[in-house]
Amino acid sequence: MAIRLSTTGLVADNGDFTHSLLNFLDCVLRGVGQVMLQGNSYAGLLFLVGIFCNSPLFGLGALLGTGASTATAMMLGTDRGQVRAGLFGFNGGLVAIALLYFLEPDALTWGCVIFAAACSTIMMAGIASLMGNWKLPALTAPFVLTSLCFFLATARFGRIESTDLLPTAGLPKAVTVEGVVTASTVVDGLFNGIAQVFFQGNVITGILFVAGLLISSRAACIAALAGSLTGLLVAWGMGAAEPAIRAGAFGYNSVLVAIALGGQFFVPGRASAAYAVFATIATALVFAAVSASLEPLGLPALTLPFVLVTWLFLLASPAFACLQRKTT
Amino acid sequence: MAIRLSTTGLVADNGDFTHSLLNFLDCVLRGVGQVMLQGNSYAGLLFLVGIFCNSPLFGLGALLGTGASTATAMMLGTDRGQVRAGLFGFNGGLVAIALLYFLEPDALTWGCVIFAAACSTIMMAGIASLMGNWKLPALTAPFVLTSLCFFLATARFGRIESTDLLPTAGLPKAVTVEGVVTASTVVDGLFNGIAQVFFQGNVITGILFVAGLLISSRAACIAALAGSLTGLLVAWGMGAAEPAIRAGAFGYNSVLVAIALGGQFFVPGRASAAYAVFATIATALVFAAVSASLEPLGLPALTLPFVLVTWLFLLASPAFACLQRKTT
Amino acid sequence: MAIRLSTTGLVADNGDFTHSLLNFLDCVLRGVGQVMLQGNSYAGLLFLVGIFCNSPLFGLGALLGTGASTATAMMLGTDRGQVRAGLFGFNGGLVAIALLYFLEPDALTWGCVIFAAACSTIMMAGIASLMGNWKLPALTAPFVLTSLCFFLATARFGRIESTDLLPTAGLPKAVTVEGVVTASTVVDGLFNGIAQVFFQGNVITGILFVAGLLISSRAACIAALAGSLTGLLVAWGMGAAEPAIRAGAFGYNSVLVAIALGGQFFVPGRASAAYAVFATIATALVFAAVSASLEPLGLPALTLPFVLVTWLFLLASPAFACLQRKTT
Repeated sequence: MAIRLSTTGLVADNGDFTHSLLNFLDCVLRGVGQVMLQGNSYAGLLFLVGIFCNSPLFGLGALLGTGASTATAMMLGTDRGQVRAGLFGFNGGLVAIALLYFLEPDALTWGCVIFAAACSTIMMAGIASLMGNWKLPALTAPFVLTSLCFFLATARFGRIESTDLLPTAGLPKAVTVEGVVTASTVVDGLFNGIAQVFFQGNVITGILFVAGLLISSRAACIAALAGSLTGLLVAWGMGAAEPAIRAGAFGYNSVLVAIALGGQFFVPGRASAAYAVFATIATALVFAAVSASLEPLGLPALTLPFVLVTWLFLLASPAFACLQRKTT
Repeated sequence: MAIRLSTTGLVADNGDFTHSLLNFLDCVLRGVGQVMLQGNSYAGLLFLVGIFCNSPLFGLGALLGTGASTATAMMLGTDRGQVRAGLFGFNGGLVAIALLYFLEPDALTWGCVIFAAACSTIMMAGIASLMGNWKLPALTAPFVLTSLCFFLATARFGRIESTDLLPTAGLPKAVTVEGVVTASTVVDGLFNGIAQVFFQGNVITGILFVAGLLISSRAACIAALAGSLTGLLVAWGMGAAEPAIRAGAFGYNSVLVAIALGGQFFVPGRASAAYAVFATIATALVFAAVSASLEPLGLPALTLPFVLVTWLFLLASPAFACLQRKTT
Repeated sequence: MAIRLSTTGLVADNGDFTHSLLNFLDCVLRGVGQVMLQGNSYAGLLFLVGIFCNSPLFGLGALLGTGASTATAMMLGTDRGQVRAGLFGFNGGLVAIALLYFLEPDALTWGCVIFAAACSTIMMAGIASLMGNWKLPALTAPFVLTSLCFFLATARFGRIESTDLLPTAGLPKAVTVEGVVTASTVVDGLFNGIAQVFFQGNVITGILFVAGLLISSRAACIAALAGSLTGLLVAWGMGAAEPAIRAGAFGYNSVLVAIALGGQFFVPGRASAAYAVFATIATALVFAAVSASLEPLGLPALTLPFVLVTWLFLLASPAFACLQRKTT
């Protein structure tokens, strides 16, 4: 079977739906790519390989979740172009990974994964409509809200058991300057920070994600590395715990902010680069704040800091004459 | 005295204000009806009878609260049509019931009830203006926010004493599959779920509410029963505690969502019915999530899940070609 | 050096930037004035004197913070008129005071103060754009959100130490009617309530603030006194603790609401005065509610109640025929 290749996807968008399965697979891979704001199925494929390297369970979950949310969008008659670009898939994929990370994977949990992925599609349409008022994208807000809602709900239901493996579980409650940050902390933290975008604490996975970004956009790849490093350095400078720095906990939100603000939304230049660096530094602090405020409810920060910081810096940008937003 | 009858109200809206007391009473009864989205004073009357059956205190409170918020709206010069439809009454009525439920009913509390009902009118105008941007109705958000604000405030004030009777008090903190769900659980839970829309845990009250809905709209009546049943079944399937299921705790938000999305806002059809069922199921989970997140502050979920789910599904709907919103 | 005098500022806005340092100082003083909604550098100067009277540390902080956020706005190319009016300064000044109040003032903290003040400028532009949709001003929301974010973040970082001196620390958790309210409580509370707008618990400071307001606007001065008194009386009537009443804890948000709604935004008249009084009473309750809800996270209410109440009453106002908003 010959796979037809387009520049950014497995299948050329030639308007017909003869190869509907391949088309669907292409949507799903682009959906996985969109987690890092890359509507590119090759990047998505490499991200998926990276996840499978760390854990086949999460890899399967990501495929199932992205598929379920994409299929829901198709059934509801959502705009075909947006579905093709993977915009109705990435939140479902992330929801699936988060639920499988947090809950014991029995039959009811797999049912919840599919239902939650479908919910993320409604959430995507709702938040896009809400924020569209200010020309803001939904980003991963549908994933964050859907996941937090399910995590909270399980506390009321006796048939769902949690794994006690929340992403922030490694962060101690009262922090003293703890452990010594060495070169190995920095290298591990750099790649773990990128891997944690999909909640994978694995250096190899991080390297595969970097490769995926390189295929899709060199600028995004550099931004991701710079973002992860900035988050790590801010956390180190402020005296965060070494294990959290090594695990990439302070990096993944900065990675996403760096990709989004450093090239995706603004015309490149000195001012927009400085703006993005400022945002990346702030993200490390916002991550600390969001995770501290959600911890009493037993909830992880997920990518909420990325969403909040990116929305804020996009909202503010029209007031600043030195910045120019890309026309899309 | 002959009461003139219009099709949906005690008094025909003939533009004059000669029978101003009767007119006011009509506004109040429609206000009570609007709690279930029925601008119908006969439905409101039956709802009121149902509340009095369970507790004369709450019945009086509902009348006083609906009256106080309606009167405030009139004094501030609010649009007469909206006041006539009861849209500035229902939040005040609910606020009054909630405050009387939660606080010891002494003179200061009755003063708070009137002040809170008046606040709910400001809140109604504010939230309607806020959400009007997306053509979303305020629903019971003014009631929820006003009540939660008063519950929180009482913690600071020595002269107000709480009754320790929060609606969610029956839900245990750590849930194990508890108690056996029998046919009597299902029947009690079905009608309690409808009665809990006004925070009345009473099967007879629930049956009177069903009768009220039947007078106003057969579709709303069916939706309410289906919504209560769905919420109950989801809670049962997920392993919620039997006493909470019997009390209708997982039902009342689903009842309201079912009435709103199953006929009120969308052109009826297969797609909109499926959309409403999906929303009703999600509501049971959102109720669990909202109540778990508010519990640490000692706050009940009230009808916040209904507001959030209905807003989300209305916001999302324009993205889905298979749904058509009613033009109003 | 002769200081040229304009009616409301140290330097006439003659369009050139020859006296740029004086111009900058003028922006900073107006920024300090804007904390009480007065774009008047003489008022700002008196407010600053009042702060220095209570604490030179906070005085320096206010100058530095206002300067840093104003400078950030200039560097980013923000609209010159808004910067001149002090609109990009007041949040930075408040952020600086709040951080110095809460954190031990070592080198890292001073670095955080400057970074946080710069963040408040982005936040100002973002919130102004967000709320501009409803023609609502940002008020002190940028200050509140930036400060709360930094307070939360410090919990994760070992190098920052808190002073355990949060503004609400004086409020006991479970309140009984405590202490006897005397004439001295009322007098102290009245002026402390005005001083607390800048988080200064000092009667002399409060009197200097009143003098500053008198220079700028007699109406604002009367509103501030009336607001402080109303907040105090509501708290007393509801049975709040005497030390909190004396400290002005229930006053400062009511002061700001009274200035904003009693003259700033509405055409003066009987209806708008009643509306403002209603809002001022509600503010004391909202302060109690907000501080109760933030306390579990170890966070103070700051001026969040002022922001929420003012937004709500402005949002609601178009629905009420008896109120007329000023055209600006």
